[in-house]
Amino acid sequence: MRIAVLGVGLIGGSVGLAARQRLGATVAGYDPDPSALSRAAERGAVDEAATDPAAAVGGAEVVFVAGPVGVLPQAVGTALQMAGPECVVTDVGSTKRGIVSRIEDPRFVGGHPLAGAASSGVEHARADLFEGATWYLTPVAGTSGILYERLHRLLRAIGARPAAIDPETHDVLLAAVSHLPHVLANTLVEQATQALASGPERLPATGPSFRDATRVAGASSAIWTDIYLSNADALARQIDAAVSRLEAVSQALRRGDAAWIVDWNERAAGQRARLMEGQIGAGPLREVRASVPNRPGVVAQLALELGRAGVNIVDLALHPAPDMSEGVIALWVSGQEAAQRAAELVRGLGYAAALA
Amino acid sequence: MRIAVLGVGLIGGSVGLAARQRLGATVAGYDPDPSALSRAAERGAVDEAATDPAAAVGGAEVVFVAGPVGVLPQAVGTALQMAGPECVVTDVGSTKRGIVSRIEDPRFVGGHPLAGAASSGVEHARADLFEGATWYLTPVAGTSGILYERLHRLLRAIGARPAAIDPETHDVLLAAVSHLPHVLANTLVEQATQALASGPERLPATGPSFRDATRVAGASSAIWTDIYLSNADALARQIDAAVSRLEAVSQALRRGDAAWIVDWNERAAGQRARLMEGQIGAGPLREVRASVPNRPGVVAQLALELGRAGVNIVDLALHPAPDMSEGVIALWVSGQEAAQRAAELVRGLGYAAALA
Repeated sequence: MRIAVLGVGLIGGSVGLAARQRLGATVAGYDPDPSALSRAAERGAVDEAATDPAAAVGGAEVVFVAGPVGVLPQAVGTALQMAGPECVVTDVGSTKRGIVSRIEDPRFVGGHPLAGAASSGVEHARADLFEGATWYLTPVAGTSGILYERLHRLLRAIGARPAAIDPETHDVLLAAVSHLPHVLANTLVEQATQALASGPERLPATGPSFRDATRVAGASSAIWTDIYLSNADALARQIDAAVSRLEAVSQALRRGDAAWIVDWNERAAGQRARLMEGQIGAGPLREVRASVPNRPGVVAQLALELGRAGVNIVDLALHPAPDMSEGVIALWVSGQEAAQRAAELVRGLGYAAALA
Repeated sequence: MRIAVLGVGLIGGSVGLAARQRLGATVAGYDPDPSALSRAAERGAVDEAATDPAAAVGGAEVVFVAGPVGVLPQAVGTALQMAGPECVVTDVGSTKRGIVSRIEDPRFVGGHPLAGAASSGVEHARADLFEGATWYLTPVAGTSGILYERLHRLLRAIGARPAAIDPETHDVLLAAVSHLPHVLANTLVEQATQALASGPERLPATGPSFRDATRVAGASSAIWTDIYLSNADALARQIDAAVSRLEAVSQALRRGDAAWIVDWNERAAGQRARLMEGQIGAGPLREVRASVPNRPGVVAQLALELGRAGVNIVDLALHPAPDMSEGVIALWVSGQEAAQRAAELVRGLGYAAALA
């Protein structure tokens, strides 16, 4: 398998390392920064250091486009022009509405791995960066099912857990679970700095909980300014909601309302436990076979429906009928409960489904 | 050395383990919960499981009082009644103005270790819990210098870094670096829960940064309700300031102000780097000798002055003159720069100081 990686930083470099080591793939890399590209080659993240994007993309079956969110629509557009008709092109940007609305091509699937590290750059790339990490994919009605399947399998093979999601839900969700935490981390750092400045000159002030809470403060402006601005509306709404919640806490403190504080804190404890529980499904893999018409959008529809319900598609395989009029999609999920739920969801869409 | 620990949970149990293992101290423990006390004995955190506080405190040179902030003033008062005239009594509460204003006794030194763990209870106690951890002490003018010295040395011996601070500064600082992070963690969990509830039923939604940012969400209400309420004024002011900062971010996002976002984010990056830098001083220990009158409050005065300036007193020793009219306090600090700064600070208080 031949893979192209355009942009060989932490994420692109880790894709290259993982694809080479785990799949024996041939990885062609390109980066606008020649020194980043040569470091990627030295680290073994790419087999070929291409002198331009076209040289990297030529002959590739899968293209990953990595870079700041602001440059991705143009970079993906360019990659699609160079890519063959059977090549899937994906990006790794942290917001998805912008790019998905700009790119209409059956070969494009928006993507976003929930993986990262405190330090950017190919120096910190690791073949196991995506092990167990959710990797969001945003197929739409026009997305090629066969190319979606190929990308899904590749992501599984490098250790990730692909999950389909629509771009709007993705961006609202990420505003809450990623972008708002970054904003709050910056806020905490500003407040602590001011508290220290108005008190002692310098103090051994911070314990482990402060380090945890501010680990992402001041994350790379080159990356994060684009993320914040490309999701400004959803993030601003999350901030406003946080402000309302904080005002309620402040008022409860001022009136010394112990019962309110206990109730609020216990609710948070329960909510965090549920958030960390993870998904439906545990147990040996079960296969669910869906019989579907052979038309564009069916794979995206199934993947999004199961994603919405929290049923993780571990693997999938398409089996078109010889006349291409219909086909079977085999879905593997974890455990009997998830398999039954998946079958129900498929039937709810109007297709036949059976547990194999 | 004989030590009493009243309240053998995570912190009290870890004090017991560390004092036994590192100092060969005899540790008498008491806990209002008999099962906690017997688990502490099983874990080797105490030598003697006392049936009442008096039995634990009798003959002790140092008493640690651990428990929720709300019960500490009474528990410390009781311990002081039972303790001998040469016994130092300290607490480990997370807020300090309340208890320090209520207890006036030269044998009492307020304390607060910046150490903890995700799980409470003596089951999670560790002899190395305080290794490298800041342990705030709040001596006041009436505090016995000799007893302060003894406590400082004991904390050093169990691995901690004692640092003197006045109670007001402590509480404002902790509102910013500990209590506000807890409030924001709860807020994040509430927002994420709502974002998930209005979108997909269940999703593999959270990446590592969300887990870090919400690690302390919903921390034990039994402990945290007291902390929040005992520091309600300072914490409410921190929340209000955070609200103002968040409103500015929200406005910048809505007007798409990239320059503002970059400036804000870069400022946070620089501030976090400085907060993590730690203290003045690195290098081999240097001794600074201060000649001081032998009167109450001098040790507290020196410790607080150096603490305010961020000079960490690694060790200290008192050498009273035979007629007790004056004495020498030897202070050990790390490196030549810190030693010179310490000598300047001592001279600034009107005492002679020399580098040994």
